[in-house]
Amino acid sequence: MTKQELFNQIIKKESFLCVGLDADLEKIPDHLLELDDPIFEFNKQIIDATKDYCVAYKPNLAFYESLGVKGWESLQKTMEYIPSDIFTIADAKRGDIGNTSRMYAKTFFEYFNFDSVTVAPYMGNDSVAPFLEFGNKWVILLAATSNIGGLDFQYKKIEGGKRVFEEVLEKSLEWGDEENLMYVVGATRAEMLSDIRAIVPDSFLLVPGVGAQGGSLEEVAKYGMNNTCGLLVNSSRGIIYAGSGIDFASVAKNKSKELQSQMAVQLKQFGLLEK
Amino acid sequence: MTKQELFNQIIKKESFLCVGLDADLEKIPDHLLELDDPIFEFNKQIIDATKDYCVAYKPNLAFYESLGVKGWESLQKTMEYIPSDIFTIADAKRGDIGNTSRMYAKTFFEYFNFDSVTVAPYMGNDSVAPFLEFGNKWVILLAATSNIGGLDFQYKKIEGGKRVFEEVLEKSLEWGDEENLMYVVGATRAEMLSDIRAIVPDSFLLVPGVGAQGGSLEEVAKYGMNNTCGLLVNSSRGIIYAGSGIDFASVAKNKSKELQSQMAVQLKQFGLLEK
Repeated sequence: MTKQELFNQIIKKESFLCVGLDADLEKIPDHLLELDDPIFEFNKQIIDATKDYCVAYKPNLAFYESLGVKGWESLQKTMEYIPSDIFTIADAKRGDIGNTSRMYAKTFFEYFNFDSVTVAPYMGNDSVAPFLEFGNKWVILLAATSNIGGLDFQYKKIEGGKRVFEEVLEKSLEWGDEENLMYVVGATRAEMLSDIRAIVPDSFLLVPGVGAQGGSLEEVAKYGMNNTCGLLVNSSRGIIYAGSGIDFASVAKNKSKELQSQMAVQLKQFGLLEK
Repeated sequence: MTKQELFNQIIKKESFLCVGLDADLEKIPDHLLELDDPIFEFNKQIIDATKDYCVAYKPNLAFYESLGVKGWESLQKTMEYIPSDIFTIADAKRGDIGNTSRMYAKTFFEYFNFDSVTVAPYMGNDSVAPFLEFGNKWVILLAATSNIGGLDFQYKKIEGGKRVFEEVLEKSLEWGDEENLMYVVGATRAEMLSDIRAIVPDSFLLVPGVGAQGGSLEEVAKYGMNNTCGLLVNSSRGIIYAGSGIDFASVAKNKSKELQSQMAVQLKQFGLLEK
């Protein structure tokens, strides 16, 4: 999916919501556990319920891998079920030497047909570049993450005054551009978005941490939105585990619809939708 | 496996060799391709041929994941086949927010029963800590990697004069110790090993990059060995793809034996074996 196609979806749905598919056998409703593939059944109902209100789905690979072969199968079925006009993110945080990153890229872009994959920057250029060689596919590079440990290294000042995450952003512009690179920026540090926009004004940012992790949608839009929206705001637990009963999907639907409405307000305020 | 048990194996086998199991359908000998599970068959023969000369096996997760469900099955069978006195490393370069890292830890430590997993440090403490909560299991943290991109961020000087990889080493000592933390340090920068030993004198280091990537075993031993050896030197392609014919396993055996002999010399020189 191209940047323009993604923006078109955002305008059409009046939403920049990404739903995180962190399906966990210990958290999905009990009545699903008797089924042959509870994880896929859960995802299927979540997708049916939320697909009109979101523009992206983000399966978290750890949840599928922890189930071994069965989890891998559930993920494959989930990917086949997601409508093709919805952007897909393999939240996998990969990154290794060149020939290994190439293998990961094949896994996510070819085997599963994801549009994008999250990549950790620590190993530098040749760990990221192989992912950028696939046409119409995206790297979503970790920049300033929302977790407390994000403070350990990402905000260290390096000689010259830049912080590590700023060095990552600047360096990455030598490897790709806003047509194949996005960045992970946590909503818990919304004010950071201005600093990030100073370096990557036109890029999309994947923003986790709204809701459950405490970030505010208004703040994120205020500091992060650009003229192609430039934001994918993720909610996982706040949507998919909002309900725990037989009606979990309709609760998820309401939650995603609620977030979509709030996003429409922000898009209008920014002048991206007709008022 | 404990540090002492690993050291005992090193003394017994007079080797600190780790064999990287990067099984690739495009590189394994043709005659295996007709079999039901060529990847497992390849690994099985490599393990039979090399197990007397190495103390660790390191499957590279990317190679298995790229084959989807079948790759996952091959990995599972491989793990069951590896003798229990050989240390196992999931080379996965994972690292995510706490609840996700916990899922990855369960995958590698419980589902597959690996002794250790490689972890990327970019997301800090809470991305690493969940892996350290498992008894008798290890995190192998990326510090100074052997690839060219390793220079992009790891060697940047931060305020106060330390380099990023030194900050990673120091910070990590707040999270664990030499009984549950090792570090990835590339052999292509062997002289770095002195700087690393200044911070983590007693820890094991996983050293890729000897052979194919150009590092020298003598240099690595000179700068990196300590009184429990403290080194696991990895060779992947240099062993498993040394031969490409029907006799690939015996070629691999000779290559691993050759490395083991060179390692025995280093262990003797350092006074860890009787002369």
